[in-house]
Amino acid sequence: MNDTTFEKSRLTLLGLGAMGTVLARAWLAAGHPLTVWNRTSTRAEPLAAEGATVAGTAAEAVAASDLVVTCLLDDISVGEALSDVDLTGKDLVNLTTGTPAQARARAAWAEKRGARFLDGGIMAVPPMIGAPGSGGYVFYSGSRALFDARQGALAIPAGAMYVGEDPGFAALHDVALLSAMTGMFAGVSHAFALIRKEEIAPKDFAPLLVDWLTAMAPYVYGVAGHLESGDYTKGVVSNLAMMVEGNSTLLRTAEEQGVSSELLTPFMALMERRLAAGHSNEGTTGVIDLLTH
Amino acid sequence: MNDTTFEKSRLTLLGLGAMGTVLARAWLAAGHPLTVWNRTSTRAEPLAAEGATVAGTAAEAVAASDLVVTCLLDDISVGEALSDVDLTGKDLVNLTTGTPAQARARAAWAEKRGARFLDGGIMAVPPMIGAPGSGGYVFYSGSRALFDARQGALAIPAGAMYVGEDPGFAALHDVALLSAMTGMFAGVSHAFALIRKEEIAPKDFAPLLVDWLTAMAPYVYGVAGHLESGDYTKGVVSNLAMMVEGNSTLLRTAEEQGVSSELLTPFMALMERRLAAGHSNEGTTGVIDLLTH
Ligand SMILES: NC(=O)c1ccc[n+]([C@@H]2O[C@H](COP(=O)([O-])OP(=O)(O)OC[C@H]3O[C@@H](n4cnc5c(N)ncnc54)[C@H](OP(=O)(O)O)[C@@H]3O)[C@@H](O)[C@H]2O)c1
Ligand SMILES: NC(=O)c1ccc[n+]([C@@H]2O[C@H](COP(=O)([O-])OP(=O)(O)OC[C@H]3O[C@@H](n4cnc5c(N)ncnc54)[C@H](OP(=O)(O)O)[C@@H]3O)[C@@H](O)[C@H]2O)c1
Repeated sequence: MNDTTFEKSRLTLLGLGAMGTVLARAWLAAGHPLTVWNRTSTRAEPLAAEGATVAGTAAEAVAASDLVVTCLLDDISVGEALSDVDLTGKDLVNLTTGTPAQARARAAWAEKRGARFLDGGIMAVPPMIGAPGSGGYVFYSGSRALFDARQGALAIPAGAMYVGEDPGFAALHDVALLSAMTGMFAGVSHAFALIRKEEIAPKDFAPLLVDWLTAMAPYVYGVAGHLESGDYTKGVVSNLAMMVEGNSTLLRTAEEQGVSSELLTPFMALMERRLAAGHSNEGTTGVIDLLTH
Repeated sequence: MNDTTFEKSRLTLLGLGAMGTVLARAWLAAGHPLTVWNRTSTRAEPLAAEGATVAGTAAEAVAASDLVVTCLLDDISVGEALSDVDLTGKDLVNLTTGTPAQARARAAWAEKRGARFLDGGIMAVPPMIGAPGSGGYVFYSGSRALFDARQGALAIPAGAMYVGEDPGFAALHDVALLSAMTGMFAGVSHAFALIRKEEIAPKDFAPLLVDWLTAMAPYVYGVAGHLESGDYTKGVVSNLAMMVEGNSTLLRTAEEQGVSSELLTPFMALMERRLAAGHSNEGTTGVIDLLTH
């Protein structure tokens, strides 16, 4: 058997926005026959020239392939685009960003219509799609059978990482990582604000900050160990008492530099609450207990 | 000339707490004659057994060496410990954590007493001291002449990184990195809270989170580039409009999972303010402008 006798499976893609367009190009480049549809049909034209079959309606597009991928604005658009479409026997893979509850409801909805369902959370921006080595990947959760059957095609645009049968898990992993990043970006903003008025070049400071954040990221493993064991003190070197003590230097410095401390104080307040509750020998893991209600 | 004929310079160290003790051991291990002093004298005993000369008073300790290192609780303790001590002709290196303003005032104070002054910010915990390859290092700022003359000894416990003549810069760099880390830890706490009640093992989630934060840390270079050029839109792939849009999924997910969003909302509020001011094509760099007043 050689490559020419091995035909790649046909796919349908609904949604040709910034992300859908690069997904389409990745599958076309890999030799997958591709049918595309977009609400605003003009956006499909360049892809027709690149070899895609353009369908006039979502129903027509879905009818063309057993594997149907959606990459639309939000969960509501998925419901709208597929409202009257026959999904019987289809493998539906939804790469539209949403919440875990939306993914779970969409999975139940798809199964009722006779489709297998997989939800995806894209951990990449368009330039990372179809670029092996870019580090981009997609979390998948839902039907394991679908994932196993379609993994070859799914792994073309970016790495495919299956995280569980619960269809909400891909969205949950996606949102959890983006939330952590939001915190990191907040910290980064505060750090740059501190040096802002000084004769410290941002480009000289940047590598120090990147190296520091990279060196401190493995703190996460300690937190995970605490949560696994229930013992939040294990392996703690800088304990909560010392960290809360140190926070006063951070706050005084912000004041000296004329920087608002609003991005740091909510976390510091939770550290103080946990310390006041008698947990001086912990790290910051106990803060997690205070966040969940 | 061989090692035995080359005598290492004598040092004095004031302060034998958790950090001072490991600093002392690192210098002793490297063959530096060392005089130590600690307010509570019992803490010096183990070091005497390891070869340190123990001084009965701070003044005696300072008199023993030209290079004097302080590693005390806070800036006030430095003032107290050295209040009546003759510092004429000394090289004073202060490894006590403080704010930039405290370091600047301490530098002026030391110079008035006839000493050269260098302030240090230790980016390490005790287990990383005297452990080459641990990644620990110390920011130094103040007298360049002192740093150049004493760099050999200063680089023994951990890497020595000089960041400028302004004696406040070491503390400022130190606090800026710790502040950024605080933000990252806040984000990490929120992320773990989100998965808390689900059947997702923290130990399986941890490597995904570490890899993600490590992959996103270089975002810092983009921010630095924006600040250098004043153009906050350059190279932006996910712009502020898209990020603010995405925040609603983060907040809805937190609500679904029963997690307080208090650690994320201050940064999101600033992103929204900047977007409302007409900066949809920027990344998050404009938030820095809103933090400084
Ligand atoms: N871009 C990224 O960096 C990125 C990264 C990770 C995940 N994602 C996710 O990928 C998905 C698509 O993102 P994108 O960047 O491609 O967005 P986009 O450029 O804004 O495109 C949105 C797409 O959704 C379609 N759409 C909107 N409402 C619709 C409706 N009611 N019925 C049918 N189609 C509708 C649009 O069709 P029209 O052309 O007719 O408006 C367009 O094809 C989103 O869920 C996004 O969160 C994007
Ligand atoms: N430990 C770390 O992980 C770490 C990391 C980075 C930076 N640092 C900084 O290093 C410095 C020392 O930290 P540490 O961990 O060694 O603290 P520590 O274990 O609490 O020791 C504090 C030291 O300060 C002395 N001291 C306190 N008040 C004094 C006073 N009024 N006069 C004279 N001596 C006084 C104490 O003497 P007694 O024994 O008599 O009480 C003791 O030697 C701090 O500024 C800290 O922020 C520490």
